[in-house]
Amino acid sequence: MIDKVSMKKTLLEMGRKARSASKELKTMRSVQKNKILSSIATRLVEEKDYILSQNKIDLKNGRENGLSNAMLDRLELTEDRISNIAKGLHEISGLQDAVAKVDSTYIRPNGLEIKKIRVPIGVIGIIYESRPNVTVDAAGLCLKSGNAVFLRGGSESIHSNMAFAKVMQESGLEAGLPEAAVQLIPWTDREAINIMLRMDEFIDLLIPRGGEGLIRKVVETSTIPVIKHYKGVCHIYVDSEFNKEMALNIIENSKCQRPGVCNALETLLVHKDIAEDFLPALEQLLAERHVQLRCGKKARQILPSAESATEEDWKKEYLDLILSVKVVDSVKDAVEHISTYGSDHSDCIITENDKNANFFLRAVDSAAVYVNASTRFTDGAMFGMGAEIGISTDRIHARGPMGLEELTTYKYVIYGKGQIR
Amino acid sequence: MIDKVSMKKTLLEMGRKARSASKELKTMRSVQKNKILSSIATRLVEEKDYILSQNKIDLKNGRENGLSNAMLDRLELTEDRISNIAKGLHEISGLQDAVAKVDSTYIRPNGLEIKKIRVPIGVIGIIYESRPNVTVDAAGLCLKSGNAVFLRGGSESIHSNMAFAKVMQESGLEAGLPEAAVQLIPWTDREAINIMLRMDEFIDLLIPRGGEGLIRKVVETSTIPVIKHYKGVCHIYVDSEFNKEMALNIIENSKCQRPGVCNALETLLVHKDIAEDFLPALEQLLAERHVQLRCGKKARQILPSAESATEEDWKKEYLDLILSVKVVDSVKDAVEHISTYGSDHSDCIITENDKNANFFLRAVDSAAVYVNASTRFTDGAMFGMGAEIGISTDRIHARGPMGLEELTTYKYVIYGKGQIR
Repeated sequence: MIDKVSMKKTLLEMGRKARSASKELKTMRSVQKNKILSSIATRLVEEKDYILSQNKIDLKNGRENGLSNAMLDRLELTEDRISNIAKGLHEISGLQDAVAKVDSTYIRPNGLEIKKIRVPIGVIGIIYESRPNVTVDAAGLCLKSGNAVFLRGGSESIHSNMAFAKVMQESGLEAGLPEAAVQLIPWTDREAINIMLRMDEFIDLLIPRGGEGLIRKVVETSTIPVIKHYKGVCHIYVDSEFNKEMALNIIENSKCQRPGVCNALETLLVHKDIAEDFLPALEQLLAERHVQLRCGKKARQILPSAESATEEDWKKEYLDLILSVKVVDSVKDAVEHISTYGSDHSDCIITENDKNANFFLRAVDSAAVYVNASTRFTDGAMFGMGAEIGISTDRIHARGPMGLEELTTYKYVIYGKGQIR
Repeated sequence: MIDKVSMKKTLLEMGRKARSASKELKTMRSVQKNKILSSIATRLVEEKDYILSQNKIDLKNGRENGLSNAMLDRLELTEDRISNIAKGLHEISGLQDAVAKVDSTYIRPNGLEIKKIRVPIGVIGIIYESRPNVTVDAAGLCLKSGNAVFLRGGSESIHSNMAFAKVMQESGLEAGLPEAAVQLIPWTDREAINIMLRMDEFIDLLIPRGGEGLIRKVVETSTIPVIKHYKGVCHIYVDSEFNKEMALNIIENSKCQRPGVCNALETLLVHKDIAEDFLPALEQLLAERHVQLRCGKKARQILPSAESATEEDWKKEYLDLILSVKVVDSVKDAVEHISTYGSDHSDCIITENDKNANFFLRAVDSAAVYVNASTRFTDGAMFGMGAEIGISTDRIHARGPMGLEELTTYKYVIYGKGQIR
């Protein structure tokens, strides 16, 4: 057990080193970064026995502490999983670099040429729970975008995380990565996270990934900018002019293809004129997929055997095979419901009416607003970003899927010929 | 005097109203917003007697409280100043709207068309000191970019701020502005600001403008994202291959044209090979402009009558006719100094050598990096943004001058034809 003063001293020293590493990383060429990422990937597979042995300790502790089977599954590493993690790094290495990309160039009337150029953010702090693969995935994306990374994983996966960090550090150093470009906090005490959250001198951005409690704590304590990856209460609204088969398809996909993720459908809104015909067909389809419906008053008149939805249901992210269903009077009504209960993540209108589509797209202010497509597309890979570090439910800096570009900021480079004011 | 519980209740109610106003503002057409801004501008001039009478109360209180003449000058409104503030609003009304601008459009292999579209941030909190014109300038920029604004001014200017807010609210409402689109906290208690800083449910972004103490307090207490407008320790480095006349011109302009602002020059770095010839010429020129030099060891050997610079001087934002001067061995040395002591605001290299220019532009990671131009150009108007709400010294969301576009965020709009995953 380490005392608070020594812990703080060590963490601040880690911060200083991260800042120093980030200065080197900022100007590192793509080819060099890619080489480093590939070296790390290769080494992870070579060191799989070591990593698996450390993971076994976490699994043993987890079983003793009564973790659920679902949590143990998330915690467990296998040869296959390590191979996939390494493959992920190779893929990141192959992505186009976002750094040094020119956003815009213009010449002012006085002849000054102004270029807006993407640069790394600096040092990024990632705070995460349970899944040890985040240690590598997040580090890979941060390094590729020229950022140093300061990791703080959950206590359940500490041995696995430490093993990953050690292998990345050693193989990275050999391949030319600055020391301290990847660091993991070795303590899982609450105190360590409290210190980290106030290290604004050394950490430029925090990305917390985990439950509501963790994220709230980070927001309340941190003096560092935070981009949250919070819940998705996603809606689909089925308009009165619509393609029935398409609607059934999209709803089934949005709800069932992977119900446990933030871009899965949680609430269905149906126009009153088509509810009587559409809802029974939907009920039949979703019954086959074992989806439980929770219906508002009008919807329940049409589907009397379904459960009733409470006020709480409209706000819920079920992450399960449950769907809230409400009959609405108009597209305006649907927008109003989404604005009241939604989480600004992903929302969709199914319609053949362009006017209603445009109204919905304009009035719904979510990170991703769809017409006639599954909400499950809100994802870095699906958006063509190659990979993602998460999906921002915030409004500052980045919204929706965050890829490499969202891990950068910009600077202005100005070419003069002696201009003065 | 209001008790804490009532104050909190009132502030939360103001927050709820701001959120509601922001929902209306988000989809308001440009032509409507412009009409509102022009109406407010006209009314400000019509109500100048009322505004001046309220300003007189602030001035009287200020004199009684012993405010310096400089502070009283900043506080004072005149007919001319009110006309200029109104003119500023007309100019904002004439700027191009950043909302609904399409950042990018692309089609995915599955046929999904993805558009990244700029949208307002929502509710913006501005915390500022002394100058009452900020009340109108900031409100104008927020409204034009479709945001509701939540203002908290300094106690010295409370009557002037309240007068401006009242005229804006009344004339805005008549012209179709949603109620509570512009609100000013009527209390200057510390408690009011503490409550505001935790209202993350209702305020999406905070922009504090003021002294170091204020900004530090906001960062430490706020649960709302903050973009800081902090100090500028700006550097010019004069390289060994350079145009002497241009260098003198740029240095004089950067230092003397308006020494009290954040983009003014504070530290000059000079290559050792040219220092002996260049520094005496510079000393002569700046003596005419009453600039005091504070020299490092080597510079002082060349300019023995100048004062010595201490370690503290390299970190200082003088905001005055004082300049730190240091002789460096190379462009690399200059970059190292800037990286150690700078504030990442605006830095410049004066050189005729392209290789050194490119090295400097790449290695110096400030919001604005110049070759052969005055640092005074770091400014919204000079960058072609039309107007600015401030200059960000942060790295997240916006760096450098913040205009209308920086007061927006984006959403993804996705057009499908029934695509599923």
